[in-house]
Amino acid sequence: MKRIEVIQNILEANETIAKRNQQLLDKHKVFAVNIMSGPGAGKTSLILHTLRRLNGKLNIAVIEGDVASTVDAERVQSEAKAVVQINTRNMPESCSLMAAMIETALKDIPLDNLDLILIENIGNLVCPAEFALGEHKRVVISSLPEGDDKPIKYPLIFVDADAVIINKMDLLPHVDFDIASFRRSITGLNPKVEVFELSCKTGEGIERWCSWILGQVETNVAKR
Amino acid sequence: MKRIEVIQNILEANETIAKRNQQLLDKHKVFAVNIMSGPGAGKTSLILHTLRRLNGKLNIAVIEGDVASTVDAERVQSEAKAVVQINTRNMPESCSLMAAMIETALKDIPLDNLDLILIENIGNLVCPAEFALGEHKRVVISSLPEGDDKPIKYPLIFVDADAVIINKMDLLPHVDFDIASFRRSITGLNPKVEVFELSCKTGEGIERWCSWILGQVETNVAKR
Repeated sequence: MKRIEVIQNILEANETIAKRNQQLLDKHKVFAVNIMSGPGAGKTSLILHTLRRLNGKLNIAVIEGDVASTVDAERVQSEAKAVVQINTRNMPESCSLMAAMIETALKDIPLDNLDLILIENIGNLVCPAEFALGEHKRVVISSLPEGDDKPIKYPLIFVDADAVIINKMDLLPHVDFDIASFRRSITGLNPKVEVFELSCKTGEGIERWCSWILGQVETNVAKR
Repeated sequence: MKRIEVIQNILEANETIAKRNQQLLDKHKVFAVNIMSGPGAGKTSLILHTLRRLNGKLNIAVIEGDVASTVDAERVQSEAKAVVQINTRNMPESCSLMAAMIETALKDIPLDNLDLILIENIGNLVCPAEFALGEHKRVVISSLPEGDDKPIKYPLIFVDADAVIINKMDLLPHVDFDIASFRRSITGLNPKVEVFELSCKTGEGIERWCSWILGQVETNVAKR
């Protein structure tokens, strides 16, 4: 079927560009994290917390992916060393960032003296699971109001995640979400995944997440 | 560019099948509603409320779209006249239902003596905006915890909606969501859209939504 062949070709081309992106990042000792979630789970808020807590320790740039608008880039502008907004509205694949978009964005980011790039993907639990960007770690955010069945309904994105964040813990008294059941679902799919429970509203749990990211960057830079 | 041509062909083929679906539905005087939202905004809960309130007045079937799992179909099984689960995991387009999937599902639904089909699309604010299914009305659910900026970030799905539901109103005291600003954004994109504020948890606002659906079905059947 023609459609499947084209998709296969796109995925293979994407893998090649993703590898090239990672080589470029490695050459400059820059660590990249691909942050994925459904719409409104808290990607931008998590990035803002991470910038505020790790600024001074790390030089951080942000790539913001959105179908339309620049509101997220504006929110993080003052805290990051560099921000690039990608709008996918008129691109061939509008439901996910792709490696070629990141390759273009990296031309606008001064990679020398940079330690970390946080990439905010399109708010979507389906398409971003399929496209590597050249990142070193993949993070998925689930938020309590979405319900604890998301790993069952969107397994692929959880299978390949290095870390899963359970955000909006402050809403636990007000929603039906079984943390133990959610944790069983994700570790069933992905036994080695790191899980963080936090609230971007209250700041609860942010420190542990930032320590993990800091540790990842330090380990990664020391290795090379 | 090859990819864009293929997408164009797929969209055109989809439109043709969608029209055929609508003709089949019209022939049997069945009204179809395409219900779209991000993951966990409350599509299944809204369908359950609608079934419980309108059973006795209408004969209703449900088509459940999910990337994986049958949990949603199981939830609505006992309340609907017929339920068909579509899993898109291994299909060429996994991020949205498409007209061809509905065409297949309609073969498993007895259309005689049926009044309404509620179609739950994949939890995604990007792809479902592009694929007509043959539905008579398009409904988008936004939930308060997702934030009030979704129409700015995902405009296309709101532009084409007949109704927008603001769900999880019970969480208003606990989240930052400006109802007036959200309403301005959607009516700016789509001045004729119907807006419903409701809570599937408390049942607040469900009656007005069900009256609207009932009115739509009655108007539609009377016209033909």
